[in-house]
Amino acid sequence: MTTVAAYAAPAAKAPLERTTIERRPVGEFDILIDIKFAGICHSDIHQAREGWGEAIFPMVPGHEIAGIVSEVGPGVTKYTVGDRVGVGCLVDSCRECDNCKAGLEQYCTGGSVGTYNAIGKDGEPTYGGYAQKIVVDENFAVRIPDGLALDVAAPLLCAGITTYSPLKRWNAGPGKKVAILGMGGLGHMGVKIAHALGAEVTVLSQSLRKKDDGLKLGADHYYATSDERTFQDLRGSFDLILSTVSAPLDFNAYLSLLKSEGALVNVGAPEEPISLNLFSVIGGGKTLAGSMIGGIAETQEMLDFCAEHGFGAEIEVIPAEEINDAYERVLTSDVRYRFVIDTATI
Amino acid sequence: MTTVAAYAAPAAKAPLERTTIERRPVGEFDILIDIKFAGICHSDIHQAREGWGEAIFPMVPGHEIAGIVSEVGPGVTKYTVGDRVGVGCLVDSCRECDNCKAGLEQYCTGGSVGTYNAIGKDGEPTYGGYAQKIVVDENFAVRIPDGLALDVAAPLLCAGITTYSPLKRWNAGPGKKVAILGMGGLGHMGVKIAHALGAEVTVLSQSLRKKDDGLKLGADHYYATSDERTFQDLRGSFDLILSTVSAPLDFNAYLSLLKSEGALVNVGAPEEPISLNLFSVIGGGKTLAGSMIGGIAETQEMLDFCAEHGFGAEIEVIPAEEINDAYERVLTSDVRYRFVIDTATI
Repeated sequence: MTTVAAYAAPAAKAPLERTTIERRPVGEFDILIDIKFAGICHSDIHQAREGWGEAIFPMVPGHEIAGIVSEVGPGVTKYTVGDRVGVGCLVDSCRECDNCKAGLEQYCTGGSVGTYNAIGKDGEPTYGGYAQKIVVDENFAVRIPDGLALDVAAPLLCAGITTYSPLKRWNAGPGKKVAILGMGGLGHMGVKIAHALGAEVTVLSQSLRKKDDGLKLGADHYYATSDERTFQDLRGSFDLILSTVSAPLDFNAYLSLLKSEGALVNVGAPEEPISLNLFSVIGGGKTLAGSMIGGIAETQEMLDFCAEHGFGAEIEVIPAEEINDAYERVLTSDVRYRFVIDTATI
Repeated sequence: MTTVAAYAAPAAKAPLERTTIERRPVGEFDILIDIKFAGICHSDIHQAREGWGEAIFPMVPGHEIAGIVSEVGPGVTKYTVGDRVGVGCLVDSCRECDNCKAGLEQYCTGGSVGTYNAIGKDGEPTYGGYAQKIVVDENFAVRIPDGLALDVAAPLLCAGITTYSPLKRWNAGPGKKVAILGMGGLGHMGVKIAHALGAEVTVLSQSLRKKDDGLKLGADHYYATSDERTFQDLRGSFDLILSTVSAPLDFNAYLSLLKSEGALVNVGAPEEPISLNLFSVIGGGKTLAGSMIGGIAETQEMLDFCAEHGFGAEIEVIPAEEINDAYERVLTSDVRYRFVIDTATI
């Protein structure tokens, strides 16, 4: 066991504070990672505040982890000490179900294990990346290519793969008109990735406040959804809309912006059920789909893709003592575009 | 102009009665069809009773039309007198929009023209297949292959293409587990077509009343949705669910029956908006889609497919005087599986 400095929420809605946690001994197929940076995902806040149902406390959030391998178990073949690696939302899965075999570990039906706020196969709670070290099975780590700095790579482990996976699956690419709905942590990655995939990219954001940024990151067009004309002007325009918004939306209105046989894919997750008029999908043969992060192999593919195209996330690096303030700023969308904790400050 | 005997609804909710209508002169690219059989589609009833919004009366319903070409215009190249042809839900479209060019006339953005209860490009109301003759542009007719009798072919023009198009688009075929939700006019065609495409077919019907028929038509399995165990036993089972049901459904429950990355495609159209928990599609990367009939070329492909596999619809042929009774029986699902009017009796 290794005692590690970490930031934890001691209880639901309590501020996070410095503490120590125990990491398991490095097992046969484990690697020990010296965490350098950990991104702050909106879902960290949901979970730390028990907004998504019963949670495990104390909770060390963080599933956007970038660091350096400092020890490897005897059976490890993929990594050696000194390797630059990342860990995302999962640290284990059943490895036997059809989804695991197909590289869809995120949809494991035998029981996947979240990076934090979950119970590992050893029966112990898992603790995330707001900490100085983590021990994970080598199969749930990915390699961070040399071209990517660790700080801008960290958010790719959730925000990057969550947008990359559906953009690839739903054929964002040359000749396709893709709208990214929402211009936050997920949305700004959606813009970069869709642009790099060759699509014509439109941002649909509440206001034009971040328009300059959007165009700089690769968007070709930028519209405010608070302007009713947007819905008239863009009717029937898009092959694909990727919604990164968790607030309640009028999905019928957004479906009207799709071309026939177009798809609106959700990675944002409103807590309340939506009201959907099925004629919104029947006329036009349209699709409303969902997507959740991505598999391990696809996460590696995404990192390689980002490195090849020379981009990571847009970030603000903060010391650990600012985590609670950062949470408040995330809730008011006052971040461009992802907070990343410098874990040396924990 | 040709005066033609027809059955029409004189006003919303009034019983249909025998009348006469005028058909336009046969134009340069028109064909005159002696209608032999016309299927009764549930949507005929919706429209004749003005259940889908303001309608045009008198209304001659019928968009499942099979007959024989009896005259052709001077510019017609596709058909000659004596050819066996069908007409489905559309008799015209703009022919210039991206959808028309892509063979998706059903999603024409420039203004398609329904076979009845619509205004044609000549400014006159269109009248459907409950009549002895119809004049249509040759581009909106399809050839009925010799192997298909006209009576069993008629329902293919709506019920056939409405199920064939999404089954093809969403990859029903060998190795795929496909559920057909609803065992009525559309559903029974879905079973036949999915089976002929090589899929493993399950019927999900309210009761087991039609189980023997379902298995005979090609289903491998048959479950009652009124039995709560069905939802437990079939959780995560299907690659594709085709819903032909217009009654309100718990879509979250049906989405739980899909495998990860599976699709639930709706061709039934509940009048009220549905309530959808987006987590039902996010977890599992699932799809809720819609589909509406099919394009003209695809309708021809479907007829050729059915002829090649040696099947049409399961029908009850009725004389025109029984149309009103047949409507009542459709509303209580008392038909196996499509009423077809023998238009010689009009």
